[in-house]
Amino acid sequence: MEFLQQYQEIVEQGIEKYMFKDKPRELYEPMNYIINHRGKRLRPIMVLMACDLFGGDIKKALKPSLAIEYFHNFTLIHDDIMDEAPLRRNVPTIHTVYGLNTGILSGDGLLLKAYKFFEDLEPQLYKACVRVFTHTGLLLCEGQQYDINFETQDNVTFEEYIRMITYKTGVLSASSFEIGALIAGAPFRDAKNIFNFGKHIGIAFQIMDDYLDVFGDQKNFGKQHAGDIVENKKTVLYLMAREHGTEEERKELDFWYSKKTDNIDKVYGVEKIFRRTKVDEKTLRLVEKHNEIAHDYLMKIDISEEKKKPFIELANYLLRRDS
Amino acid sequence: MEFLQQYQEIVEQGIEKYMFKDKPRELYEPMNYIINHRGKRLRPIMVLMACDLFGGDIKKALKPSLAIEYFHNFTLIHDDIMDEAPLRRNVPTIHTVYGLNTGILSGDGLLLKAYKFFEDLEPQLYKACVRVFTHTGLLLCEGQQYDINFETQDNVTFEEYIRMITYKTGVLSASSFEIGALIAGAPFRDAKNIFNFGKHIGIAFQIMDDYLDVFGDQKNFGKQHAGDIVENKKTVLYLMAREHGTEEERKELDFWYSKKTDNIDKVYGVEKIFRRTKVDEKTLRLVEKHNEIAHDYLMKIDISEEKKKPFIELANYLLRRDS
Repeated sequence: MEFLQQYQEIVEQGIEKYMFKDKPRELYEPMNYIINHRGKRLRPIMVLMACDLFGGDIKKALKPSLAIEYFHNFTLIHDDIMDEAPLRRNVPTIHTVYGLNTGILSGDGLLLKAYKFFEDLEPQLYKACVRVFTHTGLLLCEGQQYDINFETQDNVTFEEYIRMITYKTGVLSASSFEIGALIAGAPFRDAKNIFNFGKHIGIAFQIMDDYLDVFGDQKNFGKQHAGDIVENKKTVLYLMAREHGTEEERKELDFWYSKKTDNIDKVYGVEKIFRRTKVDEKTLRLVEKHNEIAHDYLMKIDISEEKKKPFIELANYLLRRDS
Repeated sequence: MEFLQQYQEIVEQGIEKYMFKDKPRELYEPMNYIINHRGKRLRPIMVLMACDLFGGDIKKALKPSLAIEYFHNFTLIHDDIMDEAPLRRNVPTIHTVYGLNTGILSGDGLLLKAYKFFEDLEPQLYKACVRVFTHTGLLLCEGQQYDINFETQDNVTFEEYIRMITYKTGVLSASSFEIGALIAGAPFRDAKNIFNFGKHIGIAFQIMDDYLDVFGDQKNFGKQHAGDIVENKKTVLYLMAREHGTEEERKELDFWYSKKTDNIDKVYGVEKIFRRTKVDEKTLRLVEKHNEIAHDYLMKIDISEEKKKPFIELANYLLRRDS
């Protein structure tokens, strides 16, 4: 998608321009390290897209869009510590390279730096954007805590799961769009519409992620096959299988999830239950449902269909749909 | 000091009123845990004092003053992880009770919560206060990193040390006063004056802390005697002793600081060098110098001496002077 690349270039130029040159080097170098290991820059792109949609000035949205990217990277630094992850985007994680303490501290610093990147906005707009930003940050922390809780929580409900992925993934894309809209001076109602578009795309994306972990084409997906099953993760597939399965299937599922192992019998056994309970199809329908809700919110915005096209393309791209 | 207690009560009531009841409990309980283990509440008191000095509305300053207290506690949570400290104010630290991951995450959450406590302010004032707050946060991170660097850095200069304590201690008290002044609508110049008052009191306090570690009356001070010497900390005493000592004294100092031990010979040996090089007296003179600079800034403010009295009393209290 050409438009994505164009936005991406703007973001990359911004990141290059504002690379941290502050001192002490030991604090800021790790920030540059993680930010420079690219990623798709989807969230800052969302800020710019929404700003464009409502006829705003992209230049004005650039620094706030970087704030979102910095925030995202702050969460990656701290999450990687919590997950004891050695690698991120195929390079060693911050705490692996620089140690735990620098990981914590440069994460903190990056969050604070993110706040600075709203400071060019006039007070009214500054307050509106920073409020959204702070609120989003808190929801992400809450989502992360729910996710941690789920590891040891026996009776995770489907609703609890949806709330968790909404907080962890949905809200940040939602807020990225909203902040872009606010900067463009969009009416409050439309800022909320684009927020909700982003929220449901985010939810759909996360559910698709669960689906692809098991049923995806490994070549394109590039992760360990069925890593979630190996790790006993309570994904949407697992939760729906427990909900829709027979007593016997539930028992079998509990048996497999009683031990963490990449044993092939476990992976096949669980996959079989997933297919038998038809949660593969159900999951795809759920993705479609959230995609449609997102679409409906987009349609509520009184702007030409032509200008909305990139949003639909982005959704299709994120959900790996060919249409 | 009666006035301190009165402010303290206001702060305690605020903390009680706004205790976090959000969910998930696992995220917010640790925040309440550390906040409820009191401390002197000096920083929020500083916000209220400055607001009072400039005739502002204390009620308006309360939530921002709590923001400062939350921020302070956020730094304590993360610092305790970095220092691997088992205790804080005689109770187990957050990561000891709740684990490393909750320590990191609830620290992050507390920083974000702090930002929310400015949101009752009108946009102009909100922006002014949040900017000061963000900037202060970054300087604290930088100060913490310098402090970490010093552990392995051989040639720490006196100037570098002063910068480190300014960032780590001076700036937060400075900003607490400044934010109180801003909320009271003080003129920009006076907000800067009270900022500088707080900055130099903070520096003086930190230098006094170094002094008391070695030369303080243990009964009142309540820490391990000469813990800084045991830990090879590059305090102001150490740096001045290296600067003013003879070649031989420098060599002796290097010898003692080549090993971490609470050996009594080491402590006495280093103390003797400190006395011989007269850095005990020099340090007290330095405390006095920063106290005087602070005082001069206070005097620049065109407000009755009567209203400034609490500030001088606070300074004396912090510097443990009887006058």
